Amino acid sequence: MNTRDRIIDAAEQAIHEYGLAGATTKRIASQAGCSEALLYKHFPGKEALLLAVLLERLPALAPALAALRERLGEGDLAGNLTEFALAAVDFYGRAAGIASGMISDPSLLSTFRDMLAKGATGPHLPIEVLAEVLRAEQRLGRLDGAIDAGAAASLLMGACFHRAHLAFFTDLAQPADAWAAAIVATLIRR
Amino acid sequence: MNTRDRIIDAAEQAIHEYGLAGATTKRIASQAGCSEALLYKHFPGKEALLLAVLLERLPALAPALAALRERLGEGDLAGNLTEFALAAVDFYGRAAGIASGMISDPSLLSTFRDMLAKGATGPHLPIEVLAEVLRAEQRLGRLDGAIDAGAAASLLMGACFHRAHLAFFTDLAQPADAWAAAIVATLIRR
Repeated sequence: MNTRDRIIDAAEQAIHEYGLAGATTKRIASQAGCSEALLYKHFPGKEALLLAVLLERLPALAPALAALRERLGEGDLAGNLTEFALAAVDFYGRAAGIASGMISDPSLLSTFRDMLAKGATGPHLPIEVLAEVLRAEQRLGRLDGAIDAGAAASLLMGACFHRAHLAFFTDLAQPADAWAAAIVATLIRR
Repeated sequence: MNTRDRIIDAAEQAIHEYGLAGATTKRIASQAGCSEALLYKHFPGKEALLLAVLLERLPALAPALAALRERLGEGDLAGNLTEFALAAVDFYGRAAGIASGMISDPSLLSTFRDMLAKGATGPHLPIEVLAEVLRAEQRLGRLDGAIDAGAAASLLMGACFHRAHLAFFTDLAQPADAWAAAIVATLIRR
């Protein structure tokens, strides 16, 4: 494994063990078996390293969105969306340790926000991709054309994001699969 | 102002300035003009102090939910829910600094989770209160009785929670009021 990969693995592990605040570059470098200077040669700052962990190590939303796109017009739309919702809850739960840590660290967040803006990327983009999928299903006549696809995507992704966060604080009574099926049925009802 | 209130104010201010990780009890006590020992006499731990800030200082969701209940059967349901959604986005944005900081601090989260369980409380409860409001509007014939009120509440609260978090990372193109009106219209359509 090359140094860059070792550093990313060490960062992921340190965040899992110590939380974002406790995952210092010193600790990460030590765990990766390299100097802090070498870490900074690969990543200009902790923010860039965190972005690499988010993009390269976490089970991303992209495959789940791609699966929806591949199944356009095929299978049961409610079933496809329910499966997507479960994947989204899982993703947001795994990403929460990093994303939440950034919100609670004003200086880290500020740099990260600038980095996202420069890259024209951000956590709002998956909602737009989901909205495009819903529009395509509308064109295929499988989803009520009167539905505002952007708003529907916002509701579905939001519910998944929220559930993933609630699970950190409490045991949720309703099992995830029953919950996902219910929100999808409510959202796409005719 | 009594010592307890001074400590809560100092905690709120410290979290705002330094993030949750930087808001140490030492810093909070110093800002409140008291010793750490006195702080711990009022609050058994940082978790209890954070819960006090959340419950006693933040603009809670309770008034917004109470406003919905007071307007049961009155005014425009879509308008009432849109106003509620805007209040929820605002609340979640203000609570995010604390809630997110806890998710990224495993030991703080564990104690806080136990504290919530013992108090039979938690961040999932407002969804249940909103679901009750929606059920009451269904009984009054103002909302489609076929809608799963629990699922609808999950979708609405989730979208608000998500939007509040997205705003930390990016400038959202759609203004909050247009966004809120669109998600409500999509959710309660007949």
